[in-house]
Amino acid sequence: MKYAVGIDVGGTTVKLGLVNTEGEISGIWEIPTRTENSGKDILPDIAKAVKDKIKEKNIEDDVIGAGIGLPGPVDDEGVIRKAVNLHWERTFNVAEELSELLDGMKVRAGNDANVAALGEYWQGAGKDYGDMVMVTLGTGIGGGIIHHGQIFAGTTGAGGEIGHICLEPNEKIHCNCGNAGCFEQYASATGMVRLAKEELDSSKDESELRGVEVTAKALWDAVRNGDKLAIRVAERIGYYLGLGLSIIAGVVNPEVFVLGGGVSKAGNILIPYVRKHFDEHAFHACRDAQIVIATLGNSAGTLGAAKMVID
Amino acid sequence: MKYAVGIDVGGTTVKLGLVNTEGEISGIWEIPTRTENSGKDILPDIAKAVKDKIKEKNIEDDVIGAGIGLPGPVDDEGVIRKAVNLHWERTFNVAEELSELLDGMKVRAGNDANVAALGEYWQGAGKDYGDMVMVTLGTGIGGGIIHHGQIFAGTTGAGGEIGHICLEPNEKIHCNCGNAGCFEQYASATGMVRLAKEELDSSKDESELRGVEVTAKALWDAVRNGDKLAIRVAERIGYYLGLGLSIIAGVVNPEVFVLGGGVSKAGNILIPYVRKHFDEHAFHACRDAQIVIATLGNSAGTLGAAKMVID
Repeated sequence: MKYAVGIDVGGTTVKLGLVNTEGEISGIWEIPTRTENSGKDILPDIAKAVKDKIKEKNIEDDVIGAGIGLPGPVDDEGVIRKAVNLHWERTFNVAEELSELLDGMKVRAGNDANVAALGEYWQGAGKDYGDMVMVTLGTGIGGGIIHHGQIFAGTTGAGGEIGHICLEPNEKIHCNCGNAGCFEQYASATGMVRLAKEELDSSKDESELRGVEVTAKALWDAVRNGDKLAIRVAERIGYYLGLGLSIIAGVVNPEVFVLGGGVSKAGNILIPYVRKHFDEHAFHACRDAQIVIATLGNSAGTLGAAKMVID
Repeated sequence: MKYAVGIDVGGTTVKLGLVNTEGEISGIWEIPTRTENSGKDILPDIAKAVKDKIKEKNIEDDVIGAGIGLPGPVDDEGVIRKAVNLHWERTFNVAEELSELLDGMKVRAGNDANVAALGEYWQGAGKDYGDMVMVTLGTGIGGGIIHHGQIFAGTTGAGGEIGHICLEPNEKIHCNCGNAGCFEQYASATGMVRLAKEELDSSKDESELRGVEVTAKALWDAVRNGDKLAIRVAERIGYYLGLGLSIIAGVVNPEVFVLGGGVSKAGNILIPYVRKHFDEHAFHACRDAQIVIATLGNSAGTLGAAKMVID
């Protein structure tokens, strides 16, 4: 059996996994992400962890390469421009540097949202489909486009970075990015909580969301319980998600949208709210796209990273 | 010298061209598009025209294939779903059928806007760039995405069909497609004329557009002449074009946008109006995209069609 190493780099820990060519994870472990000194130890730490594991398992001849997912824009060549969470300020080729540290091993690098999309495409919710767009609903909105089975990285590695497409040109509240009206201001976990609080403030209706900490989870639980106020919020969220997906469909015409990220734990209850507004706004030629929930959770990143070096 | 035949099928005429592998058109001719009888003669007519020309020029051994651009959604395999202007109602593989009629010649088929985009990428305004999005501003808005030098057709051939992404969810006036608020309602030639007429009706200001037939050409001529009312309209058009391109950039992160179609004859005067609003709305990671005017005019379709079979 041949293996690839899948590496998922976060701001506090690096998750590593041994993945065989069938897509089975046979071991997963973590090391801390040392961001001090402009993050200069991060790649050497990873290289050491990979080498130690290969030695421990005695699989020197069976490892075909390593893929690495990173929290920043990575282009097709493996060049990263900046990764704030890793304290990396320079523009350099991550794939090449890590390959050197691994004595010439085949290495591919990608943006973490793109890599997770590839994981879902290979082994998760996108498995039975062609072109796919993954939409990651977390603190913000990330995304990844899979075209002909490959990550669509875009010119500067920002392909599929759909969180900041403008859905409300007249919005007064600013997004973290400096613009206003961004997709993630309405449909990320943060955006959902904001819309829920707006509804709680502007209405006097009873709701199980009153007097509790409003989170995306609490909101969707309330929707599931038939809470009328929560359902009104779900309608607004569904509107923005449906509108956003309809626009993306008009550009890249995917066969499936996979909704991932923390919010997707709410599960299928989201879908009808999104579907309704998607159908309303999508151009007829793109309207057949399926909308499904991600199935791999955190292992999407490990699997997708490994898949980058598996043909 | 080797040649490819580039075929550009319109609703009234089919334009054919002999294109060498350097991108030079050495001959161009037309035949009528016979749409009667559900357009069943169109492909046989084309095949006969191609064969006759090859015989006439005595280049049987130098033709490597034929590419055909069609007014309808065509997927990667060459399957067209429907082409209203050709009276084709069935779903079939155009590339395969034309290849059979040409005794097994290599044939590739694409949507006409995608094919024109490939032409501009190969020999026109997109020549010096990587990933490109062409935006065709005519009666409607069409578009084509070129990714890694190839047409991005999308799942049902609607990739790059950006004319119907929704920019004004609250619009009351309906688009031909049945939705409301579509990109092309504001920034196609038709949309531009509509916005100009709205401005003429709602203002009492003098303008050279009063008392003449308002066309996109007249509008941009007036802008060039410093007509204040026309400049206000140009600002609104620039807003919608800039917003639309910023959204597309947020999805596919191209290196360049090429503006083509009839309106692009207005030339560079459009660009600053678009650029201003693009910069305002685009996510910083995608903001470096260039915005330029197409250079090939009608020959983009012939060249792009030929390029589909030239490696």
